[in-house]
Amino acid sequence: MPHVRTERCDGGYTIVWLQREPVNTMDLPFWRELSAALAAAEANPAVRGLIFASALKRSVFTAGNDIKELYAPRTSFDRYRKFWVESNQFLARLYRSPLVTLCAIRGACPAGGCCLSLCCDLRLMADGPGHIGLNEVAIGISVPLYWARLMARVIGQSAAERLCQFASLVGPQEAKELGLVDRLVPEAELLPAAESAMRSALALPDSGRALVKERLRGEFSREWEAYPAEEAVGAWQQLEDPATVKMLGAVLARLSGSSKRAKL
Amino acid sequence: MPHVRTERCDGGYTIVWLQREPVNTMDLPFWRELSAALAAAEANPAVRGLIFASALKRSVFTAGNDIKELYAPRTSFDRYRKFWVESNQFLARLYRSPLVTLCAIRGACPAGGCCLSLCCDLRLMADGPGHIGLNEVAIGISVPLYWARLMARVIGQSAAERLCQFASLVGPQEAKELGLVDRLVPEAELLPAAESAMRSALALPDSGRALVKERLRGEFSREWEAYPAEEAVGAWQQLEDPATVKMLGAVLARLSGSSKRAKL
Amino acid sequence: MPHVRTERCDGGYTIVWLQREPVNTMDLPFWRELSAALAAAEANPAVRGLIFASALKRSVFTAGNDIKELYAPRTSFDRYRKFWVESNQFLARLYRSPLVTLCAIRGACPAGGCCLSLCCDLRLMADGPGHIGLNEVAIGISVPLYWARLMARVIGQSAAERLCQFASLVGPQEAKELGLVDRLVPEAELLPAAESAMRSALALPDSGRALVKERLRGEFSREWEAYPAEEAVGAWQQLEDPATVKMLGAVLARLSGSSKRAKL
Repeated sequence: MPHVRTERCDGGYTIVWLQREPVNTMDLPFWRELSAALAAAEANPAVRGLIFASALKRSVFTAGNDIKELYAPRTSFDRYRKFWVESNQFLARLYRSPLVTLCAIRGACPAGGCCLSLCCDLRLMADGPGHIGLNEVAIGISVPLYWARLMARVIGQSAAERLCQFASLVGPQEAKELGLVDRLVPEAELLPAAESAMRSALALPDSGRALVKERLRGEFSREWEAYPAEEAVGAWQQLEDPATVKMLGAVLARLSGSSKRAKL
Repeated sequence: MPHVRTERCDGGYTIVWLQREPVNTMDLPFWRELSAALAAAEANPAVRGLIFASALKRSVFTAGNDIKELYAPRTSFDRYRKFWVESNQFLARLYRSPLVTLCAIRGACPAGGCCLSLCCDLRLMADGPGHIGLNEVAIGISVPLYWARLMARVIGQSAAERLCQFASLVGPQEAKELGLVDRLVPEAELLPAAESAMRSALALPDSGRALVKERLRGEFSREWEAYPAEEAVGAWQQLEDPATVKMLGAVLARLSGSSKRAKL
Repeated sequence: MPHVRTERCDGGYTIVWLQREPVNTMDLPFWRELSAALAAAEANPAVRGLIFASALKRSVFTAGNDIKELYAPRTSFDRYRKFWVESNQFLARLYRSPLVTLCAIRGACPAGGCCLSLCCDLRLMADGPGHIGLNEVAIGISVPLYWARLMARVIGQSAAERLCQFASLVGPQEAKELGLVDRLVPEAELLPAAESAMRSALALPDSGRALVKERLRGEFSREWEAYPAEEAVGAWQQLEDPATVKMLGAVLARLSGSSKRAKL
């Protein structure tokens, strides 16, 4: 069963459902499917917008990157580099996509899921249980360079520094106040609100909007897209460090020994 | 009758009245008069500050650029380039002017009027009907590069992207919350409040203030000033595109056929 | 008696007490002691965090730079350059320090004290009398380039321009709203709250946090560190200007003739 399912909607947009039970952990195939969904949408002139949403039973947008892709004893530099380049090239391309992109966040949205949402044009979050942030520091690794810079673009340098340095995951209310999400809606109205926002956006002609987006995001996006192969070298050294291996091993043990959701 | 009238005030400042009835549409002569007013004020050591205000009968600061300057069938590349260079060089110079610059916004303030206000040191807005924003996308053209970047400097990258991409015009309250304007005042108190803010600012010595402004704005302003001749080439291609011509033609027809105010 | 006293605390952090009665004016020896305290803490693996706090009797964090260091008739270019390089290299290094850095602000915090606090990871302010800002313009000199840029990183370009150009000192409530400080606490709880925030931060592993901080602040910090010797040349010209000498002389006369605290 694929990790990602796309649903074409009347009105010129597609919903990208994230459906890898139980918590949408993002491994290499997951990012590849996201890439493919984006490329297919961009290649289809009838599709003018994308909504990302979780199809999970529980209240989780995604738990973020699959720890197995980061745990050195279970992967290799070669595999890690592929994983890192694939995921970041998708994110960088999503950030400058000429499509209208919208993220409907229900529940937990740490790390990779947070970054995916920051690459969209608009973030709606269900006003219930849930949290969002780049919390990599909690397991002893750094927030990726462009993820932190992207957060700084969205909520300002100082707030991004504070959240990233202290691995803060914030609830919907604080996320709204910080500007990390644009709007809160009751959970039952999340998808209808997202579709309604999409229809409003698509009432405008595409030409000017796509140019503005390219102007405001193009340069940053292309720098980011060129960086992951280089970043993977230093990140791998960090992942091979015995202290990191020990910490990630403990996270994996905790995850496999319980039903608790991963927070990275 | 000139489009712009200047009024020297006691206390070392000048009010620049925008008075092109009915809605202060900004054509090439309008921008030239603004440039001349700025140059004259900067050349006069007795003038330390400028207030921009609308002298119109109705509640409009300005309706923005004159569509006739953008509608390819009624202009030429040569005229458009002159228009584009003149307007943007004025705006870029205003942004780094050593004078204290203040904008008193009453009513509608889309596109060019919004950009003019963003180039000032302080924006006061009447807390009545009115709206402000860079809404070029609504008529199928892009927000100019430095206009969008300037908005991002003022209200942050993410809010500027949202407003520009979705052609949003926001009312006074939302403008205040976003930081697009600095203060709201009742309409009857707009000019007195602006003059009072000007007098407070002029109570400080000019030397340090002008240096700080140059430090914080000089580099951005000079990049901007150098750019419009280059930008005009790509923008003209956009304006000659049949889809754009059709959209702008419809706007012109609507404007000439009714008393509705232009929103660009 | 030294201007600065360090207190080692259980839990891996040090409190740096500023104790130069009556108002912690920052002269060359003061900045040297701050530099030494930072270097000693960074060299000691048992120290993972620093808290800056005032040990003064009255409610003043610091009154900022000692006017005597800026008043041309009482100093020399050589002395001024040493002062300027020492103070700014300390600030630039503090900004990227791998330690968790926290500022507990009680009372007045203009100019140099404000900049010191902006270099920390977290700013707590007592919710009583007090103010904070970069108010150099009030005495006719410019806000230093990187001080103004740093404020723009923390509270955004537009708010920083407004505060710096108009020499605004804001009270705790407005400082919190602007994001100039992160949290307000009753004065009696200031130090306990700071220590509690420090212990929370130190509960996270250092490795990822220090990397994130370097990524987000390293480039800016190194540019800043390289700049003060160059900046001193232009600043000295400004300080030798007769109008500046007259203004600073008046400030000195006012300070020596009363118990009023210096605001720079």
